[in-house]
Amino acid sequence: MTYCVGIKLEKATVMISDSRTNAGVDNVSTYSKMWRYGIPGQRQFVLCSAGNLATTQAVVGELKRQLQNESIQNLANVTDMQMAAEYIGKISTMVQEKAGGGPMFEATFLLAGEIVGAENALYLIYPQGNFIASSEQVPYLQIGEAKYGKPILDRVIDENTPVDRAIICGLISMDATMKSNLTVGPPIELSVLNQGSLQITSYRAFREDDEYIRNLRQLWNNAMVNAVDAMPSLNFVP
Amino acid sequence: MTYCVGIKLEKATVMISDSRTNAGVDNVSTYSKMWRYGIPGQRQFVLCSAGNLATTQAVVGELKRQLQNESIQNLANVTDMQMAAEYIGKISTMVQEKAGGGPMFEATFLLAGEIVGAENALYLIYPQGNFIASSEQVPYLQIGEAKYGKPILDRVIDENTPVDRAIICGLISMDATMKSNLTVGPPIELSVLNQGSLQITSYRAFREDDEYIRNLRQLWNNAMVNAVDAMPSLNFVP
Repeated sequence: MTYCVGIKLEKATVMISDSRTNAGVDNVSTYSKMWRYGIPGQRQFVLCSAGNLATTQAVVGELKRQLQNESIQNLANVTDMQMAAEYIGKISTMVQEKAGGGPMFEATFLLAGEIVGAENALYLIYPQGNFIASSEQVPYLQIGEAKYGKPILDRVIDENTPVDRAIICGLISMDATMKSNLTVGPPIELSVLNQGSLQITSYRAFREDDEYIRNLRQLWNNAMVNAVDAMPSLNFVP
Repeated sequence: MTYCVGIKLEKATVMISDSRTNAGVDNVSTYSKMWRYGIPGQRQFVLCSAGNLATTQAVVGELKRQLQNESIQNLANVTDMQMAAEYIGKISTMVQEKAGGGPMFEATFLLAGEIVGAENALYLIYPQGNFIASSEQVPYLQIGEAKYGKPILDRVIDENTPVDRAIICGLISMDATMKSNLTVGPPIELSVLNQGSLQITSYRAFREDDEYIRNLRQLWNNAMVNAVDAMPSLNFVP
């Protein structure tokens, strides 16, 4: 399983992914599910993946291979984010068909990015190659094990949320998911794409023993207890 | 869909259920999923249900019918909570078989209660009639759409949690689920069984426009934003 979340704000897009993969509970391993590619000043992409590991690795491999060939469409020459999403969707369906097709080989992607002269965007690319964009009303998209981490996003995130608040909210959403689903696990990767920067993005990986995440988890647990205790108490004779 | 949660604390057991049922998104209705039965001073039960509505209604109907017959096992004469769970499991499998069996007719129950002279208990009764009890480590049990409302329980509830805190935490867990899954909806019902009281339990139903729940939701949303902002900010140069 996997959990990835992308949050598209006015000033930046935040991407967070876990790194656990499993084929049964006795076959667990660690692979990054976040791939970054960019040409400073020109374009930046962050791609997160969920689903069949062979498919997602083959898709990233093919994206890289096609970057070597200037005469074909690739991430270095697509002219807007929608074209980038369409292109990745096409590669993904091609890879799945090659493996035999069907639900077993499916993969889902989150694509965040910006291309000079075009609008930045956040897309969720389905296994079928089609995709949806984040909206002003719901400025985040999730793939993989999405339910545990959704309520905190629903309560905190809107398009005007400051970047720092969104980062911490996303990490709490990830932590809630890791706590409840053992097949979602560290390292957690975090990328921030500042809108208009078109440069190398902020990036950080949090390993299992990361001090910041451990501290955040403890402080958050305490904050939840305090927040519950601060709610008005209930009168049983309404 | 449905969401019900039971929380067994040192001093009381808290039961919360929603009331929405649906057979497709265009066939939505409201039925209580919480049934209470007791003999003051002798025994008290709260039963919450998820799954096929015809099955759950038939089970409660059969439980009531058998109460009329003193010569057979029923909820008025079982001598401990494990026997009560076993009995309800048996009725449930019988009802399902009568309807033809299979996943379509399945139902799951949460049973909380206390019988004079025996220990109080909280059980989750599976469609197969077998059951599990809550534990000291995880003093809550959920049925139905459990994922959205789990993180807040995980962070706040342990067996020493005060009853008031558990009630509010359970209502927040329910509210998170209603926000994310349209097939979970009001009225919300809440019962509290104080340990050793063996009397009519505290009970309250919250309708769609309930002032307390609306207020709680707004205050909780604000509390979450404030709690996120109070977390230590992240240094990107680790």
